[in-house]
Order: sequence, then C-alpha cells, then structure tokens
Amino acid sequence: MAKEVVIIGGGIGGIYVLRNLLAKKGEVKEGMHLTLIKREKSGWVSVCGLPYALRGWYEIDRTEINKPQFFLDQGVDFRTETEVVQISVEESMVTLDTSEVLRYDYLVIATGRKPSVPAVVGEAKLEGVYTFNNEDDARKIEAAMNAEGVKNAFVRGRGINGLQAAVAFATKGLQTTLLGGPPSLLPSCLDPDMGDMLKEWLEKQGIRFILERKLLTALKGDGGRLKSVVVGDEEIPADIAVIAVGADPNTELASNAGIDTGEYGGIVTDKGMHVQRSGCSINNVCALGDCVEVIDGVTHCSRLSQYASTVVVQAKVIADNILGEVTARPGLYASYEPCISPSVADIGGLLVGSVGVTSEAAAMAGIKTVSGKATKLTKARYFPGAKPLTLKLIFDAYTTKLIGAQMVGESTVAERVNELAVAIYAGITAKELRNMERCYDPSLSLLIDVTIDAAELALGITPVY
Amino acid sequence: MAKEVVIIGGGIGGIYVLRNLLAKKGEVKEGMHLTLIKREKSGWVSVCGLPYALRGWYEIDRTEINKPQFFLDQGVDFRTETEVVQISVEESMVTLDTSEVLRYDYLVIATGRKPSVPAVVGEAKLEGVYTFNNEDDARKIEAAMNAEGVKNAFVRGRGINGLQAAVAFATKGLQTTLLGGPPSLLPSCLDPDMGDMLKEWLEKQGIRFILERKLLTALKGDGGRLKSVVVGDEEIPADIAVIAVGADPNTELASNAGIDTGEYGGIVTDKGMHVQRSGCSINNVCALGDCVEVIDGVTHCSRLSQYASTVVVQAKVIADNILGEVTARPGLYASYEPCISPSVADIGGLLVGSVGVTSEAAAMAGIKTVSGKATKLTKARYFPGAKPLTLKLIFDAYTTKLIGAQMVGESTVAERVNELAVAIYAGITAKELRNMERCYDPSLSLLIDVTIDAAELALGITPVY
Repeated sequence: MAKEVVIIGGGIGGIYVLRNLLAKKGEVKEGMHLTLIKREKSGWVSVCGLPYALRGWYEIDRTEINKPQFFLDQGVDFRTETEVVQISVEESMVTLDTSEVLRYDYLVIATGRKPSVPAVVGEAKLEGVYTFNNEDDARKIEAAMNAEGVKNAFVRGRGINGLQAAVAFATKGLQTTLLGGPPSLLPSCLDPDMGDMLKEWLEKQGIRFILERKLLTALKGDGGRLKSVVVGDEEIPADIAVIAVGADPNTELASNAGIDTGEYGGIVTDKGMHVQRSGCSINNVCALGDCVEVIDGVTHCSRLSQYASTVVVQAKVIADNILGEVTARPGLYASYEPCISPSVADIGGLLVGSVGVTSEAAAMAGIKTVSGKATKLTKARYFPGAKPLTLKLIFDAYTTKLIGAQMVGESTVAERVNELAVAIYAGITAKELRNMERCYDPSLSLLIDVTIDAAELALGITPVY
Repeated sequence: MAKEVVIIGGGIGGIYVLRNLLAKKGEVKEGMHLTLIKREKSGWVSVCGLPYALRGWYEIDRTEINKPQFFLDQGVDFRTETEVVQISVEESMVTLDTSEVLRYDYLVIATGRKPSVPAVVGEAKLEGVYTFNNEDDARKIEAAMNAEGVKNAFVRGRGINGLQAAVAFATKGLQTTLLGGPPSLLPSCLDPDMGDMLKEWLEKQGIRFILERKLLTALKGDGGRLKSVVVGDEEIPADIAVIAVGADPNTELASNAGIDTGEYGGIVTDKGMHVQRSGCSINNVCALGDCVEVIDGVTHCSRLSQYASTVVVQAKVIADNILGEVTARPGLYASYEPCISPSVADIGGLLVGSVGVTSEAAAMAGIKTVSGKATKLTKARYFPGAKPLTLKLIFDAYTTKLIGAQMVGESTVAERVNELAVAIYAGITAKELRNMERCYDPSLSLLIDVTIDAAELALGITPVY
C-alpha cells in the first residue's frame, strides 16, 4: 500500500520536502502518496523574492515559481486555501477545516511563523498598516504605496523585512522613517559598527532612522486611513506603515497535539528533525523551518533560524529520512547539524552578509572573542568593478577558531559568506585562515585579500597593505 | 648591529618577502638592512596583470606597481639590472656580477623560473618568436602584434600563458592557431571534459586548436623574420609566435652552492621554507616561489606550484621566521602547509578555476575518486547577471573527502575556488558539503546551489532541480 505523507504548510519548508520526495518517488516500490495542505491560494512562492518585486525589479506574480496545477499534475494532493485544525499523533491523523480527516504514515509540520504586532497597532484598526510576511502582504503594500497622494512611509522594525520595506518605499520616492531599537541595524546578524555602515548607506538613499528606546505610542488616522504615527513625543506623517518587529514560530497546532516547544517558542526536534513529546522523539512526525528551533553551531544553545537557506537543508534531512525508512535503506539516514545560519541580502544595493555568532551573541554565551576588521577592494583598482568590501572576523579568544563573520560590500559577499561558513564549520583558526592560499588573478581578486588583513588584525599582526 | 637580509630576485616572491619585512621593520630593535637584487630594470611588476595589458585593458606600464625609487626611499638597497653570480653558504656571502661581495645574516632565494624553449625554436633564430614570462617579453609581443602587416599568430603551449597569449592575439583580430598535446586545455588544472568547455568557448572567438601528438617541426622565415611554422605535415602562416611550453625552476645559483633540488628540478625546502644541503636545513637561507618544490596537500608528494598566490603565502612564512629569529620571539614561527594551489583566471571572458588534484593527478597518486559535475545558473534566472556555471567536484572514493574542484563560468568562480580550498584543507566530505547550509538571496544565489548538485551526483543521489 502506498505510503501516505502529509505536509502541513506550503511555504518553502513544505514545498522543499515535497520537491525532495517527488524527485525520489520512483525509488519507493510500494508507492508514496503526497498531500500538501496550505492556507494560501498560491502554489510555490519565492517569499525571498518579494522585496525585489516591491523595489520594482519585476511583478509580484513572477515570484510564484509553480502554480498549484504543477504539483497536481505530478499526482500530489495539493490543497490550497485549506487549513489543518487538529493533529492526532496517537491516531496518525489530521483533521482539516472541512472536517475531512486524513490518515498519514509520515507527517511534516511546516507551519512557519506569524508576525508579531504591537497592541497599539492592532487597536488602531487603520487602513494603510501592514505586516510583510507573505505574498498577500506584498500585494497590499504594493497597492498602497502606489496609491495616489501617498507621500510618507513609516516602518517599525530594523530587521531584514523592515529594511527591505523601507528600501522599497525610498526607491519609490516616499519620505521614509524607520523606527528600531538601539544600537544599530540588523542586530541579529551585525555588530553595531557593521550595522552603522549599512545605516549610513541607507541614509544616503533618504531613509531616516530613529534607533532609540522610543515607543510607537499611537497611530492616527483620518476616515479610517493612517495619517501619522507618534514616536515618543514626535508626530510623524505616514500614509503607509509596515510593522516588522519579528515573527514568532507558528506552533499552535503542534502544541495542541502535545508536541514539545522550546525556550524561543519553536518546536523542538531531534537531529533527524523528528518532533518530540516530553522529550521522546515521534518517529513519523517531523517539523522544519520557521516554526522549529535549531541548535547553534557555535554556542550549542537553542535558537531560531528563520531563513530559507536553513529550511532547505532541513527539508533534505526529512526527505532522506522518510525515504530511508520507507525503502528500508538506513544508509540514507541523515542528521541536521548545528546551525551557523549563513545569510546574505541586497539591501538597497549594499550586500550584507553574516554567518556564525555576532560579538554580542558570543558574549551572551560566555565566549570571549577577538576580532579583526578590514576594508579593501575586491580586485586590483585598475580593473572594472573593483569595489570596497568591509569584513569583520570574530574568533574565539582562547582557541582562535573562527566563530563569526560579517561583511558589507557591493560584490562577492554571498560567496565569501559560504567560504567562511565552511571555515566556521571546520573550526579553522585565525592563523590557518591568515596563511591559507587564495586564488589570484588581478582581474578577479587581490593578492592579499581582505580576509588576510582581518585575520592578521585579530592576531595583532600588522597587515602588509 | 643591523641584521643584513639579502633577497635574490625581484619577482613577486622577492618583493613580498621585502614588503612583509618592511611592514614589520620597526619591531626589530637592532635594525634590519634589506637588500634586493634583481636582473630587470623595473621595481615591482604585476606579471599576472600582463595578459590583460596585451588584451588592451590598460598599458603595460600600469603593471609596474612600484618603481625602484619607492623601495630606495624606504632605505632598501634595491639593485636593478644586477645579478648574483655566486652564493657561499659557508661564508654567508653572495657575489654580484659587479664582483661586489655582500655578507648576509639571512638570504632569500627567489630566482623564479626560466621558460623552456624547444631546440627547433632556438635553432631557427627568427624575429617574431617570443616566450611570455615577464614584462620584457610582454613589451616585445605587444610591439610585434601591433606591427603593420601582422595577420597570423601561432602559440605553442596549452597552459595558462599560451592561452592568454592566444586570447590577446584573437582579441587583436589575428588568425590564431594554438598547438598543444592531447587531450585538452590546461591539463594541470582541468580534467579533459572541463578543458573541452574552455576550448569550445575559445573556438567561438576564432582560435584554432591543434591538440594532438604533433611536433612543431620547423619555423620558416623570410629575411630573418618568422613567416610560418610547420606542424606535422602542415605549414601554418605565422607572423608572430609565442612559445609557452612551461618553465623550469631557475636553480642554477642554488645548485652551484650545493643546495638540494628535487625530482621536479625545484629547490627543496623544509616547512619553514629553509633550503637544505644533503637533507639538512640551513637556517639562514630560505627559498620560495617558482624555483621551489611544494608538498601537495592531497597526494603528499613533491610538485611545483608556480602561482603568485602560492608565493605570497611562502613569503609570509619566511618573513615571520626571519622576524621571529631576529626578535627572539619563537611565537612568530610559521610553517608552510602542504599546498592545494587554488587558481583562477579570466581566459577570454570565461573564468576558469581549480583547486586540489585533477582526476588524472589523483589516479597517478593511486587515489580512487568519485566525481560529480553539474551546470546551473549562479542566481535566479529573473535577476540580472544570472549566468551558468559548471562545477566538477572530485572526492576520494573511500573517505569521500573533497580532494579537487574545477569550474568554468562567467562569475563567482574565484570566490568558489576559495570556499572549496577551505573544504579540501579541512577534509570536508561529500555528504557534509551536500548538507551544508549556503546563504541565500534570490538576487545573489540559488536556494540549491550547483555545489549541492555536484556533491549529490558524486554520491549517486538524484538532485532536486
């Protein structure tokens, strides 16, 4: 009898488990029947592509990579605009909002996250105020920012979604103000000195930042439409506002089923991404993505890692394990390693990358650090496209192993993040990184790369400029 | 009394030892007197920048990064157009062609390489035939290729210098033929399947390749000027020819001083880059660069690594050790690690990268391999600059550790080579590489990178396209 796999959630987590299983479906002799249940109307949407749509690079429609029909055509029971209302782990069944009950051999929970909204926002009940979490939000924001007479925009939140919304507004020519806490931007990825470089870049694009311990105390409207916001004792005109103060793991369904959650509110899993009940793994129920907690690769503590890049690795582990069990090939068994969350983003033309821990996260975990920061061109100055890049490397002060890296620049950032992710994973020391050979061609790189300078500065060595 | 450091050779090796010592000169209490002796007239020339000058990106003069005066101004006894004719290790002295004798506390041998020239070329004694090893060669080639009536060019050698010369000729509009052995291009870096991709790219630029076991049997001239070459039984018109069949370590001076050389003709050093005599290290004589042998990081056998990127790491080790000894701070002591030669080049607009061993080099060393090759865009197709990249990963078949990587593409190649260099250095396995998280932003990368596909193919797993 065909194995029943039920996936709850059609974000990148659910879709990637589905895609992995579809690619290997032929290997399952008894067959595999795949069901995906999602609340939205869409098929597979690249949520990460939405900020660029708002910046005008392409239509929002372009971010729907596959329509539901694409999956239906492959025999998937792909159910849109449907919700699971209950999971019964004991009976291996889920109940839908249509009252239909589905039996499963394997259940995958990919319920994502739900944006936090401060009480003052909810109470105001004004048009023109949005969260920025999915394609529906993007469509509403796009319509609102393009409406006639819209001149002033306000963003609450200095994380990636808040910044991308602010960039979209500034690109559109709106007078944009962003309110976040101190000390600087993107604090989960960047130390304040690096965050300030991003801030200066964006200020040149006309964005005003209020990075203080000030509250958004009121939203004022006129005829039900937002007209201004009050920050501390300042009233700021605002025709449109995006509230992006973070997103909590969406775990209600799992919690109601008795599945464990952790200190950051995410579902707790074992290394095979199986969920747990009172600390015991449930072998036919997995969870992944924004709704789960990961183990940090440096501190070995729990945390969230709400990146698409995190979830695709988890999806592979889950698919491997389902296939390994179904085909009785334990050789396939995979485990999800501690996470170092390499990340990159184009924020208004500045590429911002990070991996591993920030100085603050290290300090919170009791790790003493030494760091080195350097700025250099990415190739010889007489070649086209030579642009400065600032790199900060953070090492454990005792072992001198690399534990974090941050950078801002106009090119090579994504690839450098990946290189330093391998270095952190492998426990490369400052001295090793400094003396490691790097490929050279003057049209593509420097003979002494900024990485060497940053490592030398961390070691107290004078770089050869 | 100031310590006397004498450096023989003003290529990148000699210059980088000099630059490293200059940067840290202040740390030496008793002072340090630096002498550099070089045969050429120039100061510090970026030899790696010469191919781009020939392609017309800038003037050859631009490749002289510093004039001799720059170093003289810093108190360096920077002697151009001077040669060392003898080294006496016993007396710690070198004799110059001016008969002057210099005493040294530390001697650095950076005598580089000398291009091989087949007998048939030397015997022909024709104008219009050049090697391509330094700025003097480049100037001669530039003058000759721009001379009136020059239409046909010939290149002997399918290594990097031969290819760069051919690209320069083709860019100039010359009818260009390149003769090399089978099976394909750049055999020290690329497997034949990857070399063929480069060949196809260059054929589109009009370069004709003869990659067969055919000899260059004659060079024919008219009035002392090259007019054609004979390859097998074919006579090919040629107004200009570049002979780039490789370069041997230039070790005459060292050999005459009784310094050991190895099976590839290079000077043998210990991990501190000290030269040896009958296997015993000489603590105040170091050598580096194109004239020395390295230990391969995968096979642990001797070989040459004639890259600027190799020599700058060796220069750092030598400078560290001289400073460590002079300042009696053994903590500075550095060792040169086995070499995996990450390399990259822009060859006619195609970026070609490699690191570690080729399949053939692994086989010669008795290492069984599995490999995976994949082609993919470097970012989502709807972003500007999305270009295909082909990556081949070579793993040790038993340990599944990464031991080699090769790639061709139009972007991100240099940075990827550096990433995979760290992976080889750290002994990362195919499964680790496959399940490692990579940073993602659709404008900069793909959610499932070509690296993942190549690793999966090597593991016998179907990639999720």
